[in-house]
Amino acid sequence: MTVHALEAARRLAPRFAARAAEHDLDGSFPVDDFADLREAGLFGLMVPRALGGLGATFAEYAAVATELARGNGATALVFNMHASVTGALGAVTEELAEALGVPDEALVARDRLLSAAAQGSWYAVAMSERGAGARLSQLTTAYEPTDGGWHLKGSKTFCSGAGHADGYLVAARSAADQSVVSQFLVPAGDGLTVEPTWDSLGMRATSSHDLHLDVSVPADRLLGGVEGLALVVAQLMPHWLVASYAAVYVGVARAAIDAAAEHLNARNLSGLPAVRARLGRADAATAAAQLVVAEAARRVDEAPGDEETNRWVWRAKLLAGTTAAEVAASVLEAAGTSATRRGHPLERLYRDARCGSLHPATSDVCADWLGIAALGGDPDRDGSAPRW
Amino acid sequence: MTVHALEAARRLAPRFAARAAEHDLDGSFPVDDFADLREAGLFGLMVPRALGGLGATFAEYAAVATELARGNGATALVFNMHASVTGALGAVTEELAEALGVPDEALVARDRLLSAAAQGSWYAVAMSERGAGARLSQLTTAYEPTDGGWHLKGSKTFCSGAGHADGYLVAARSAADQSVVSQFLVPAGDGLTVEPTWDSLGMRATSSHDLHLDVSVPADRLLGGVEGLALVVAQLMPHWLVASYAAVYVGVARAAIDAAAEHLNARNLSGLPAVRARLGRADAATAAAQLVVAEAARRVDEAPGDEETNRWVWRAKLLAGTTAAEVAASVLEAAGTSATRRGHPLERLYRDARCGSLHPATSDVCADWLGIAALGGDPDRDGSAPRW
Amino acid sequence: MTVHALEAARRLAPRFAARAAEHDLDGSFPVDDFADLREAGLFGLMVPRALGGLGATFAEYAAVATELARGNGATALVFNMHASVTGALGAVTEELAEALGVPDEALVARDRLLSAAAQGSWYAVAMSERGAGARLSQLTTAYEPTDGGWHLKGSKTFCSGAGHADGYLVAARSAADQSVVSQFLVPAGDGLTVEPTWDSLGMRATSSHDLHLDVSVPADRLLGGVEGLALVVAQLMPHWLVASYAAVYVGVARAAIDAAAEHLNARNLSGLPAVRARLGRADAATAAAQLVVAEAARRVDEAPGDEETNRWVWRAKLLAGTTAAEVAASVLEAAGTSATRRGHPLERLYRDARCGSLHPATSDVCADWLGIAALGGDPDRDGSAPRW
Amino acid sequence: MTVHALEAARRLAPRFAARAAEHDLDGSFPVDDFADLREAGLFGLMVPRALGGLGATFAEYAAVATELARGNGATALVFNMHASVTGALGAVTEELAEALGVPDEALVARDRLLSAAAQGSWYAVAMSERGAGARLSQLTTAYEPTDGGWHLKGSKTFCSGAGHADGYLVAARSAADQSVVSQFLVPAGDGLTVEPTWDSLGMRATSSHDLHLDVSVPADRLLGGVEGLALVVAQLMPHWLVASYAAVYVGVARAAIDAAAEHLNARNLSGLPAVRARLGRADAATAAAQLVVAEAARRVDEAPGDEETNRWVWRAKLLAGTTAAEVAASVLEAAGTSATRRGHPLERLYRDARCGSLHPATSDVCADWLGIAALGGDPDRDGSAPRW
Repeated sequence: MTVHALEAARRLAPRFAARAAEHDLDGSFPVDDFADLREAGLFGLMVPRALGGLGATFAEYAAVATELARGNGATALVFNMHASVTGALGAVTEELAEALGVPDEALVARDRLLSAAAQGSWYAVAMSERGAGARLSQLTTAYEPTDGGWHLKGSKTFCSGAGHADGYLVAARSAADQSVVSQFLVPAGDGLTVEPTWDSLGMRATSSHDLHLDVSVPADRLLGGVEGLALVVAQLMPHWLVASYAAVYVGVARAAIDAAAEHLNARNLSGLPAVRARLGRADAATAAAQLVVAEAARRVDEAPGDEETNRWVWRAKLLAGTTAAEVAASVLEAAGTSATRRGHPLERLYRDARCGSLHPATSDVCADWLGIAALGGDPDRDGSAPRW
Repeated sequence: MTVHALEAARRLAPRFAARAAEHDLDGSFPVDDFADLREAGLFGLMVPRALGGLGATFAEYAAVATELARGNGATALVFNMHASVTGALGAVTEELAEALGVPDEALVARDRLLSAAAQGSWYAVAMSERGAGARLSQLTTAYEPTDGGWHLKGSKTFCSGAGHADGYLVAARSAADQSVVSQFLVPAGDGLTVEPTWDSLGMRATSSHDLHLDVSVPADRLLGGVEGLALVVAQLMPHWLVASYAAVYVGVARAAIDAAAEHLNARNLSGLPAVRARLGRADAATAAAQLVVAEAARRVDEAPGDEETNRWVWRAKLLAGTTAAEVAASVLEAAGTSATRRGHPLERLYRDARCGSLHPATSDVCADWLGIAALGGDPDRDGSAPRW
Repeated sequence: MTVHALEAARRLAPRFAARAAEHDLDGSFPVDDFADLREAGLFGLMVPRALGGLGATFAEYAAVATELARGNGATALVFNMHASVTGALGAVTEELAEALGVPDEALVARDRLLSAAAQGSWYAVAMSERGAGARLSQLTTAYEPTDGGWHLKGSKTFCSGAGHADGYLVAARSAADQSVVSQFLVPAGDGLTVEPTWDSLGMRATSSHDLHLDVSVPADRLLGGVEGLALVVAQLMPHWLVASYAAVYVGVARAAIDAAAEHLNARNLSGLPAVRARLGRADAATAAAQLVVAEAARRVDEAPGDEETNRWVWRAKLLAGTTAAEVAASVLEAAGTSATRRGHPLERLYRDARCGSLHPATSDVCADWLGIAALGGDPDRDGSAPRW
Repeated sequence: MTVHALEAARRLAPRFAARAAEHDLDGSFPVDDFADLREAGLFGLMVPRALGGLGATFAEYAAVATELARGNGATALVFNMHASVTGALGAVTEELAEALGVPDEALVARDRLLSAAAQGSWYAVAMSERGAGARLSQLTTAYEPTDGGWHLKGSKTFCSGAGHADGYLVAARSAADQSVVSQFLVPAGDGLTVEPTWDSLGMRATSSHDLHLDVSVPADRLLGGVEGLALVVAQLMPHWLVASYAAVYVGVARAAIDAAAEHLNARNLSGLPAVRARLGRADAATAAAQLVVAEAARRVDEAPGDEETNRWVWRAKLLAGTTAAEVAASVLEAAGTSATRRGHPLERLYRDARCGSLHPATSDVCADWLGIAALGGDPDRDGSAPRW
């Protein structure tokens, strides 16, 4: 599949790039980019082949995400959320399902969601809340059982693609038992209200608005069919929480280098030694970050959850974020004032690139985690900073 | 004077800060900031006391500019252009005037311009042109004599405050003799057209639009009263061309630290070690840059044009620009995603701070200049990169 | 005085530089450098004029130390310890003495020590102990009263100039009351044994060996004449504990730039753009660090112990250490492999320069202290890392 | 083979580490390390299996070199030269030999040298000369034909392992035709004199002394059997000239992290946030550099000389050198003063690590090369700095 999907991503990237300035300007959602993704079949990227998808590995996903981000990092970030949902759903094996006590009908429901994705639906994630951030343990959105289903009530923030997705992965807490956190796949429609709060330094086209929920869903929209699985899934799949962004920011860094090279060549400035030194160091740093992301992804496929796999996942998050920000800042300086006009790709990429280190886990948290590991400790236990 | 002017700047800064987000958002000119500056008498900062001004030294100017920039860097940058014009005019001594062959009536005209500034007029600079940048040797705007004056025709870019100033310092080339470049103080009014081209990553409120000229001015608007003095003046006063921006960017860096501290304290995050390390290093770097700017300014007052003075001037430009960008990037990372929403001071300061290294002379050009000097060479002669 | 002492330091520096390689090679003490310092009268630098000294301010000391360090950083570091002892003794005013209950005979004894310095004696500091570091609260060296004096017993480490000084400032704990820490000025001679343990990466000529004490001293060798003053003095004079090293490392950084420039010019490599960029950035960073050290010193003289003074002291320590290490590493890279042969000044300076950030307070501790201050906290109270 | 050789390298590394301090101290050659390498069969690492060797790929070599360097970087650097000689000889395919006009008897002679290596001989490289550096085009060592062989006369510098190797790869210029540069494999013995000039900041145990030649060798010691092949071979195998060092410096960086972790754990300092941040960032940077070296090596095996392969080769050289130096400096700062005593592994590793960026191509040259490539130019043609 890789070849097909990767080629599709490469084909789409220039189209995304051509639309990027406009969406960045007004913060509008890249509707046409998503139509392109649907048409190319990429909503099925992480869906098993048996369900009509492309059955991509995590490594294949990472390669595709980087290519999409070379076109528009914001589009790639929203796509990343869909890939997380379908990838995590698709990764639940029969053994795991049995171990978790997932009933058969829940697997049927799961397959239905994945098939729909393969046929052109896409899902957003509504996890974070104001005050709680992305920490599941502090959510306030609540759910309770109803006749034939569930009712959810609460407010989410940073919901990328809000108002455009076909469904939303929502984490909520049981009204009956505060210690139980579950996840639902809530279909778009009545009961969901988008409050347009997203107006950010970078990655403006993600439309990561607030989403208010006061909505009833059928019983089979509880993922896994049993309550309380949210934290288990989070711990099983740190790569989707920590590192899947990383591939996007490698693409952003590479796009910045390419845009700077085009700008400098057009102005006959490519002979300046300081310009060459900046682009050379940026190229090497970006190539290194890309390899680290690929290595982390390869290991996630081969040995998910292993101690060594997780170290690579955290390294990927740290390096992709810091590299993108530093590379964009340096090549913008090489390109000069004329590249700071709004509408110039570098002006946007400089702002987009700054966001990678700020997504949780932030680069300082990553450095702490990796330091504990290098010192022989258990970073998931000994960390001083709040994690989830 | 310093005390008075510095206190005024400190008093105005919070008012500028309160208006900064709005002007940044829509790129509107900070008209109210300039009304405040007028009312506080700061348009006369560099005007000799004998002409009704405050007679500030360059060091006093630098201190005032830093304080203004803590409120709004864009306002301080535009004010910097006015200070450059009045500072350079005021610095022409009788000896220098005699040496340059400046006729008496030109000194009278000069005094009139300075007196007007002391009474509330302010001047912008229309120097750069598309393609030529700020290099006087490549300008295409032309002038020719008319009955009783001069006619100027051409187009300027990066004219901060275009459409709002009371007059414009315009550099132009003689139509009769291409080697002669002169400067005029063109009053606002007919014959000047502002083309709103400024829409930049940072320092958005400077309104540095294009200015088209097709205008006749009286004879006494030729600065110095004789043609061809533009390059002489530029070489005599490198501090206004190279380093006067530096004071502004020190203020931007300090504003970023203060905004980050306020943000972090409000969220009870000031105890995180990584946060403290970032703020501590940012504080030290900014304090150092501020001292370097002050030292350069002090030497400009004491021994303008001296070899050692010029080294400090270039150091100030290099360090203020790089420090502001690095400090803003680091403290934004400390503050986290919530500080990247548009309207948050750090979001704006991060963009504003990136611009310092990009103003000519860029940081790479400064490093080259300083390296030649450290190696015992003559940086004004041996530099590989284009300078003026 | 400055002019005289500063000129002397400049005159001596090349002589120190000529001997530096040999002392670095075998770790021998720069005996001839100290003979030069004595002859130039510099042992009396911090001694009040009334006692025959030069009566230098802290700012004047800092300028002298930087110049000496341009010759040999190790010599300057040992000299720094002598300056600390005489500077702290000389800074005890009559008011302070009265407040602390210092008897008149102790002031007479103090003056005798200072006069001796003005006449050519110099003092080392024996403060640190293995395990305790420089923290007074954890010392194990003990003293007890004897007939007509005191007996001291214990072991010190990192005693720069051990075996060469005329006297040693020794901090010890009362055998009778563990909470009482006092300081003695122990004369060289019997009862002191030097154990040659110093064999370090850099600053090898300081001979900072271990010193074992089993020695009796006359009563008047208790500094201040009353027990328990050690901590009081430490808190009153943080500049001698935190920042006096800083001036030395600025000199080391400047020496590295000068050595690199000489090396590169001799090989006709000064035209390489990468070389020039490295030297230019190194020059600017070193000039900035020097100003910060001078500003901290100026404020120590004007307002010792003030909150703002202390911030400058910590900034000086942070910036001098990190700047020296970064500058030396960068200019060594510019100079290339041929500058890494032992005996080449840059080879030594690279090692010497690395030591500045490691002296307590280390650069990470400084960053934490400054971060707390920037966030509005009280860094002497809230710091997470151990300080004294 | 990898598994066997890699395991051997891992087994030997702690033995090398145990001896490293002593060899570093006096600059003595690690004779026992080389006895261990011989016994483990590693001199045959790059020798084809048909000739009794292990037939390793370049990627396998890189992995082995990194492991050896975790024990002692100096040993690994000398081993690298032997691997270069045997690797380059072994890589001459029949097709290439035919294209270059290599006679059959030269291939027989070549196989004899490789077989000897497999049986325990090792070769050093005598390429650089004072003044010429490693640039083949500027060598002055000359050769001329004799009865039944060749006579070589001249002086080489930076000859790692001088006096210990069984043979030396010597580049020399034809006395008859200055444009012809050839390579000889000169056996140890009469006619070679070692002048002990090597006394360096780091990598002290390489014994990279000067080697004076006034020696006659049999005809079959001309590599390739025809004169003038030296430049051709250099251009065919840039990886041995540019990147083979890189694997060594990755090992040095990893050794520094491990030594710092051990030091900090032993002192119960692993809980300090600043320590953890330093180790975490060091770990990520080193892991990234290791991947880049591995990727470059993998591509050298798959597509030697390809444009994209060469970019990875230069990236590897740049990143390994800069990463090692930065990592060692940072973790030494984390470890503190007690790790700067001579004999402490970090003290040595800090000095060793500084050397990577200084080997040609230096990091500044690499950045220039990569910048040209990123800008779409031809870096082998357009570079401003001298290359070979």
